Amino acid sequence: MVKKSSDIRTLFEPKSFAVIGASHDTEKIGYKIMNNIVSGGYAGKIYPVNPQGGDILGNRVYQNIEDIEGDIDVASVVIPAKHVLDSVTRCAKKGVKFMQIITSGFSETGNAEEERKIVAVAREHGMRVLGPNIFGLYSAPASLNSTFSAGTVLPGHVAILTQSGALGIALIGKTAVENIGLSAIVSIGNKCDIDEADLLEYLIKNDDTRVILMYIEGVKNGERLISTLMRTTDKKPVVVIKSGRSKRGAMAAASHTGSLAGSDNIFDAIMKQCGVIRADSIDEAFNWCKFLAFTPKPKGNKSVIITNGGGVGVMATDACERYGIDLYDDQAELKRAFDPVVPSFGSTKNPVDLTGGAKAKDYDLALSVPTANKGIDSTIALYCETATFESADLVPMIKATYQKHLGAGKPVCYAIVGGTAVEDAIVKLRHDNVPVYGDVYQAVSCLGMLYRFERSRSEKTGTEEEADIDVAAIDSIIDGALAEKRTFLLANEGSAVMRAAGVSIPQNRIARSIEQAVQIAGEIGYPLVMKIVSKDILHKSDAGGVALDIQNGDEVMDAYEAIIKNCQAYKHDAHIDGIEICEMVSKGTEIIVGARRDASFGPIVMCGFGGIYVEVMKDVAFRGYPFNRAEAMKMLKELRSFPLLLGVRGEPRKDIEGLIDALIKVGTVIRKCPRITDIEINPVVVYEQKRGHKAVDSRILISG
Amino acid sequence: MVKKSSDIRTLFEPKSFAVIGASHDTEKIGYKIMNNIVSGGYAGKIYPVNPQGGDILGNRVYQNIEDIEGDIDVASVVIPAKHVLDSVTRCAKKGVKFMQIITSGFSETGNAEEERKIVAVAREHGMRVLGPNIFGLYSAPASLNSTFSAGTVLPGHVAILTQSGALGIALIGKTAVENIGLSAIVSIGNKCDIDEADLLEYLIKNDDTRVILMYIEGVKNGERLISTLMRTTDKKPVVVIKSGRSKRGAMAAASHTGSLAGSDNIFDAIMKQCGVIRADSIDEAFNWCKFLAFTPKPKGNKSVIITNGGGVGVMATDACERYGIDLYDDQAELKRAFDPVVPSFGSTKNPVDLTGGAKAKDYDLALSVPTANKGIDSTIALYCETATFESADLVPMIKATYQKHLGAGKPVCYAIVGGTAVEDAIVKLRHDNVPVYGDVYQAVSCLGMLYRFERSRSEKTGTEEEADIDVAAIDSIIDGALAEKRTFLLANEGSAVMRAAGVSIPQNRIARSIEQAVQIAGEIGYPLVMKIVSKDILHKSDAGGVALDIQNGDEVMDAYEAIIKNCQAYKHDAHIDGIEICEMVSKGTEIIVGARRDASFGPIVMCGFGGIYVEVMKDVAFRGYPFNRAEAMKMLKELRSFPLLLGVRGEPRKDIEGLIDALIKVGTVIRKCPRITDIEINPVVVYEQKRGHKAVDSRILISG
Repeated sequence: MVKKSSDIRTLFEPKSFAVIGASHDTEKIGYKIMNNIVSGGYAGKIYPVNPQGGDILGNRVYQNIEDIEGDIDVASVVIPAKHVLDSVTRCAKKGVKFMQIITSGFSETGNAEEERKIVAVAREHGMRVLGPNIFGLYSAPASLNSTFSAGTVLPGHVAILTQSGALGIALIGKTAVENIGLSAIVSIGNKCDIDEADLLEYLIKNDDTRVILMYIEGVKNGERLISTLMRTTDKKPVVVIKSGRSKRGAMAAASHTGSLAGSDNIFDAIMKQCGVIRADSIDEAFNWCKFLAFTPKPKGNKSVIITNGGGVGVMATDACERYGIDLYDDQAELKRAFDPVVPSFGSTKNPVDLTGGAKAKDYDLALSVPTANKGIDSTIALYCETATFESADLVPMIKATYQKHLGAGKPVCYAIVGGTAVEDAIVKLRHDNVPVYGDVYQAVSCLGMLYRFERSRSEKTGTEEEADIDVAAIDSIIDGALAEKRTFLLANEGSAVMRAAGVSIPQNRIARSIEQAVQIAGEIGYPLVMKIVSKDILHKSDAGGVALDIQNGDEVMDAYEAIIKNCQAYKHDAHIDGIEICEMVSKGTEIIVGARRDASFGPIVMCGFGGIYVEVMKDVAFRGYPFNRAEAMKMLKELRSFPLLLGVRGEPRKDIEGLIDALIKVGTVIRKCPRITDIEINPVVVYEQKRGHKAVDSRILISG
Repeated sequence: MVKKSSDIRTLFEPKSFAVIGASHDTEKIGYKIMNNIVSGGYAGKIYPVNPQGGDILGNRVYQNIEDIEGDIDVASVVIPAKHVLDSVTRCAKKGVKFMQIITSGFSETGNAEEERKIVAVAREHGMRVLGPNIFGLYSAPASLNSTFSAGTVLPGHVAILTQSGALGIALIGKTAVENIGLSAIVSIGNKCDIDEADLLEYLIKNDDTRVILMYIEGVKNGERLISTLMRTTDKKPVVVIKSGRSKRGAMAAASHTGSLAGSDNIFDAIMKQCGVIRADSIDEAFNWCKFLAFTPKPKGNKSVIITNGGGVGVMATDACERYGIDLYDDQAELKRAFDPVVPSFGSTKNPVDLTGGAKAKDYDLALSVPTANKGIDSTIALYCETATFESADLVPMIKATYQKHLGAGKPVCYAIVGGTAVEDAIVKLRHDNVPVYGDVYQAVSCLGMLYRFERSRSEKTGTEEEADIDVAAIDSIIDGALAEKRTFLLANEGSAVMRAAGVSIPQNRIARSIEQAVQIAGEIGYPLVMKIVSKDILHKSDAGGVALDIQNGDEVMDAYEAIIKNCQAYKHDAHIDGIEICEMVSKGTEIIVGARRDASFGPIVMCGFGGIYVEVMKDVAFRGYPFNRAEAMKMLKELRSFPLLLGVRGEPRKDIEGLIDALIKVGTVIRKCPRITDIEINPVVVYEQKRGHKAVDSRILISG
C-alpha cells in the first residue's frame, strides 16, 4: 500500500529538521550543514543524529533516529552511500515526511538500482525524497539553510532550482556578489523522486518568489513538467538554462547527472510553448532574473531610446529588433515632447539623441518625458562618458530617474559606457538593484525578456483539443501487427490508422471485375491510377500492370482490359487478385506532419516543410501537450515555409484549417494509443483553402 | 592638377602638429586637445593657432597658420563649421600634409556640399583629411594624443577605428578599466576623405598593433576596403562591430553619421570572406580583442576542458560546439594523462572532471597535462567555487598555470564562477591580462574566435578568377536597350547576354520549313517543345499552336504539320513566320544565381535555393571580389540547401563544377560591364555531375 505524502510546502517550511550524519568535525559536510542551519536562524527543532552522541552547536545529538521524541518533517542524510538505504528505511518507519539525500554515488555513477530501492521504501511510507547527489536546500520563508555552502544566502525574490550541485553552490556566491536575494535555492541532483514539477508547485504559491531560475541537464516526466510550467508562467516568469544542447554536451550531461539530454530542438520548442524564457549563460540568466524581479509590468509595447551618443543609439535600435521591442513612433509627439530638451543638432526621433553636450539636468528632463507620456510604455536610457557630463552626477541622476519610472509604474533600463567612474557607478547602482548595464545589448535584452514573458502570457492557447478518432479500430490494427512481432505498420495498416483517425488519404480499393472497376472509379472520382494486384507480379510497371491518369469510365474499361491482357502475356500463369483503383494525388504544397512519444516530454506533435527537403532545410516545429488548434496555428507560423501555406507569388491561400485538423488528429492518435511511438506522414499534400489535403505516405512505429 | 599625398604613416607619426582653434579657455575643446598633446608626451613640434596669440601650456600661439615657420605634418581644426573651409584652404596652401577636422555640422546634418568643397581643395594640394565630426586621434608610437578625451590612454597593442565619436571617447575610458592598452584610436566620423582602408594600411605594418577593432555604421568605397581587409587579416585579427543591422537601426545610422547601412546580410558575408570577426556588443568585442592580443597561436585544433563541476563542464562543451572548437578525443590518452589527478568518482573523459573536492594542487597538476601533451593544443579551465578549494589559492594557481601555458606556447582561457572571492580574483587577473571570465560562454567564445581567425586565414582562396566573356557583344545589347530608354533587358536580350557570357541556356531557333525543323531539332536534341511564331496568334495553346515533349524526328514532322493546320483553321489569314523549336528543360535542382553592384561593396555575386522558394526560405549566400572558384565553393557550402547539390536520398551528385562556372561567368559580367547593375537568374536548373545546367529565366537591370 502506498501512503499519501505530505504537501511539498513542508519541504520548504519544516517545523523540525534532522541531520543524519551530523558531525563534530568542522571540516565535514555533516558539520557545515548543521552550522548553516543554526547560523541561518532556523526557528524549528533541530535534531543532529550521530552514533557518537554529544552536542553540536548547542543541539543535543541523537544516537539513533528512533531516539528522537517528536515528529520529523525533514531529514537530511550525509552518510556514505552504502548506509543510505538503511537510513532511509528507518526514517520512513519513523514517519519522516521528506528526505534530502546529500550523498552521491547513485545513478550518476551507474548505481540506479539502489536509487530504485530507496524510492520504493519511501513511496511505501508516503515519504518523499530530494536527491540524491545534492548540496541541500535554502528556503527564505523558513530561514532554513540546509546546504553545505560556505557563503551566506541573501533572502530575496528569486528561486533557483539546479540540477548541478557544484554550479549551485557557486551560484549562491554569485547571487551575493550581484546582490540578488533568493527566496529559495534547491539542489535537485539525480531527482530519483522529487523533481522540478514538485518544487514548482510550492514556488507558484510562494509570494516571496517573483522569478524562478532553473538549471536543467535532462528532463524526466516532462508531461507533468509542461503542465506545471504552464501554471507557473501564468503567475511569474521562469528562466531556464538547459545544458547538454550539443551532441557532445549531451554525452557529458549523461555522465554528470545520468540525464538524457533529449533533443534540444524539442526542449526549446516546449519551453517556448510553456512561456519559459531560455538563457544560454549564467550571466544572461542572472541579468534577466534580477530585472524581472524588480521591474513593473509594462502597460504597452512602445519603448523610447534616450541617448547622448548616436552610435550606442543605433546599437540599441538593432538590439530592440533582436529582442522584439517595439519603438515608439509618433514623430509629431516625439518632437513635441523632446524638443525642449534636445539641442538643434540632436534628434527628437527615436532614438532621442541629446548629443554629447548633455548634462545631468538634460537627462533628468528627457527621462521625465516617458514617465509622464501616456504613449510611451518603457525607456532604454543610454550614456556614453563625456567630458561635459559631471561623473559625480551619474549615480544621482540614474537613481532619481529610476525612482521616477518606478513611481510611474514604467520599466526602464540603463546602459552606460565609459571608464572607471562609469564602472564604479555600475557596481554601486547594481548593488541597489537599479537595472544598469555596461553593455547596450545586455540592457535591451532584459527589457526584451520582460516583453517576451508578458507576450507569451497573453498568447497562451489554453487546454487540449482532442479529435474524435476510432481508437478500437487502431488498437486492433496494432494487435495484428504485434501478433506478427512487427514494430512497424505496413502501408495498408498505416492507411487504415489514418482512416480511423479521420485523416484524409488517397482512396484506393480493389476491383475484381470490369463493372466493379467502373463503379469504384465513379465513387472515388477522377483522375485515377490503376494497378495490377497479384502476388506473382512484383514489377508491376514492367508487366504493363499500371495505368496512370485515367480520366473517365471509358478509359477505366480500356485500362482494365489492357492491364489484364498485358499481365497474362507477361506471366501466363499469374494469379490475378484484381485491379487496384487509386485516387491520383494532384500537386499541392507538401508538408510533413508527425507525432511521437518523446522520452522526456511524452506526446509531441511536429510539422515542417515537406517532400525531399525536410532533412535539408531543417524547417520543423514541435509542440507538446496541451495541444490545440490555436497552438497548431502558432506552430505553423514558426515555420520559415509558412508563407507557402499563405500562398506566395499570387498563389491562393492553402487549406491551413484542414492541415490543423490533421495535426490535431495525428496528435490524438499518439495521445490515445500508447503503443504507437512514432507517426510520420511525408508528405501531406495541402490544397487550396477548403479543398483539403491528402496524407500520402505514413510510417508508423509501435511497441508492445 | 592633383598632387600626390603623403604616406599615411605621417598622420600617425607626425613630426609637427598644429591646433587651429587652440584655446586658452580650459573648458574648451581647443584647450583639451592641446592639453592631451602636451601631457601625453608628444615629442614633435606643437603649433597652437589662435588670432589672440599668447602662450598655451608653454607653447607659443601663432595668430595665423601662415606665420608658422616650419613644415606642418598634421593640423587639427576645432573652429566653427562656417570657418573650416577657409582654414582648410589656407592649410592646403601652406603645404599641411594631413588635417583632422574635429568640427561637426557637415554631411551628418545634411551639409554634404561643404564637405565636397573641403575635399576638392585638399585633393588639389595633395592634402588628406580625417573627419569631419571626429574626436581626434591617439597614436602610441608617436605618444600623440590629439583627442579631446578626458581620460589618459594606455599604450598597448589594440588599435580602434571608430565611426562614432561619442562611443569612441567612452571606449577610451573602458579600455582603461579593462586595462586594454591601445596602439592607436582613430575617430573616422563622416570620412569625407580618409576611410578605414587608408588607416588599415598603416596598422598592417605597425608592429605595436596586434589586433584591430572597428566600429562601423556604413561602408563607402567597399571594394577597396575588402582588399585592404584581406591583406590585414593575413597578418593580424580584425574585429568589427557593425551597427545599423536592423532596418530601423539603419535609419538611425543614416541620421547619425550620414551612413547608408546597406544590407546586413551582405556586410556579414563579406566580413566572413575577408576573415574579419564580427562582434555584436562592445563587451564581446573587447573580450575577443584582449584575448587575441595576448594569446599565442594554437598549433592544432584539439582542446581540453578541465573542471571541478560537471554542470559548467557540460555548458563549456555546448559552447565549444557553438564556437567551432574541436575537443580532444583520444580516450586512452586522456585516461593515461589525467588518471593520476582525477579521483575515482571524477571523469578523465573530456570534459575532465576533477570533482568538487579538487584543491589548487590538483588544478596545478591537471593543468600541467595540456602544456606537456603534444596532442592537446589548447585548454579551457573551469572552476566553481567550493568550500574545499582555498580562495586564497585561486589567483596564484591561475597565474602559475597561465604562465605555464604561455611558456608552452599554448592558448588557455579560464571561466570561474562564485562569490566575492571569485569576483575579486577576476578583477585582479584581468588587470594582469590573464584571460579569466565570469561566464563559461564568454571564455569559450574567446578561444573560438582565435580558432576562427586562424582557420579563416588558412582557408583564404586567393585572387580573382575571370571568365572569358564577349564584352563587346554585351555592350552592344546594352547600347540597344539604352537607346530605347530602357533600364532593363528584354528576355531575348537577357538570353543573348547569357550566351555572350557562356552561360548555358535552353536553346531555341525558328524553323521555316518542315525539313529545317527536323534539322534544327536534330541539332538541339530531344525532348523538344514546338510553338507557332505568328504575330497574328497571341494565344498559342488555344490555337493548337504548341506541341510538348517531342521525342524524335517523326514526331517533329507530325507536330509541324499539325501546328500549321491547327493555326490555319484557327485563323485562316494568319501570317505564319515559322515554328520555334525549343529545348525542353528537364527537371533538376533549382538554384538561383545572381550578381549585382552593391552601393557599399561594388560587384557582388549571390546564389541560393531557387524556384519559388527563394523568398520564403531565405537561403542565400553572398560574396564580394576577389571572387574565384574556391570562394564559390565555400559560398555554396554555406547554403542550407547545399546537400541538394551533393544529392540527398540516394540522388546522384549534381554538376557543382558547372554551377561554379556559371557563378564565375555571371560575376565577370558584373565586373566587366559597369552599366549592368543587377542580374538574377531564377532558376538555374542544375543536372547531374557533368550534365551541366540551364539558366532558364534571367532578369537584367542596366543604367546609363
